[in-house]
Amino acid sequence: MIALMLIPIGVSARHIHLTAEHVEQLFGKGAELTVFKPLSQPGQYAANETVAIVGPKGRFDKVRILGPVRPNTQIEVSRTDAFALGIQPPVRESGNIADTPGLRVIGPKGEVELDKGVIVPARHIHFHTSDAERWDIQDKQLLRVKVSGERPLVFEDVIARVSDQFTLDFHIDTDEGNAAGVRTGDQAELLK
Amino acid sequence: MIALMLIPIGVSARHIHLTAEHVEQLFGKGAELTVFKPLSQPGQYAANETVAIVGPKGRFDKVRILGPVRPNTQIEVSRTDAFALGIQPPVRESGNIADTPGLRVIGPKGEVELDKGVIVPARHIHFHTSDAERWDIQDKQLLRVKVSGERPLVFEDVIARVSDQFTLDFHIDTDEGNAAGVRTGDQAELLK
Repeated sequence: MIALMLIPIGVSARHIHLTAEHVEQLFGKGAELTVFKPLSQPGQYAANETVAIVGPKGRFDKVRILGPVRPNTQIEVSRTDAFALGIQPPVRESGNIADTPGLRVIGPKGEVELDKGVIVPARHIHFHTSDAERWDIQDKQLLRVKVSGERPLVFEDVIARVSDQFTLDFHIDTDEGNAAGVRTGDQAELLK
Repeated sequence: MIALMLIPIGVSARHIHLTAEHVEQLFGKGAELTVFKPLSQPGQYAANETVAIVGPKGRFDKVRILGPVRPNTQIEVSRTDAFALGIQPPVRESGNIADTPGLRVIGPKGEVELDKGVIVPARHIHFHTSDAERWDIQDKQLLRVKVSGERPLVFEDVIARVSDQFTLDFHIDTDEGNAAGVRTGDQAELLK
């Protein structure tokens, strides 16, 4: 009998990562993010602070900021969100924001007009180094993952990301979660 | 060499089917739907007429009516739409609306308060009888369909619907289309 390779699912709603400079522009001189709740990846958290994001065709209010601050401001939205905003961001890995569209970001104390930084997040799995060794997974490997929810499907080209700073988690966006009929905390099966 | 079983994809945005009685309530005594453009299935069309749909948490304007009129009014939304509206419709085959939530529907001449009729459409393929015979598909059979777009995946439990009134088409909703990175007119591969 072969043990299934089960991975917890994390469905990411639209969110934003900010630079320290943009936090001050949006929330005032000296402002810092405060922790609302920790996320699955060590050190990462949902902040109490939220912003509005505004595109050519629509806006979303109360968009959650994820901390801590980063070297570049990045907004992650679903394709459905992107249509509503009126922009066409590419599907990208986090951090890869060259040649992406921007948006206007509005905070309680100021605004930032981004000229880039909006992506649709590419589906990926965070593996701790020990998980990767146990299952013989290499960083950047493309994997197949089966989701057996109300609307079963198999995700292909799921990117493996391996680090001793990571906790095992399969990250998909809301379109993918809704298409599969799953939510955060459900489990997926790695097929490789 | 085995020929691939290729099927055109149709991504369905939120829409509504109305009874003749509800058309009159929403658009006025004697009103009838008028054809905006024909759909892939013979005799089906997108109407020029649209309505607003209103739930406990949100509303959508300009929701397209699909004609011709039907024996029951039915609203088809994505799971993403359902969250925005504030309702929890089940994933169902078209026509199966027992124990589903309702919505308020607003037209230019009146409103209808539905006590049921909202579903998230179950992914399905329309096969003409000749396609089904050629590929040995039975009505109601559950199929696997591979989509090789920007975000490749395999849909499972895809319901086969076979009729000599149908044209070959794989129907998914916008969450599923966005999760796969495909749009209407792209092609999928039937794996069975």
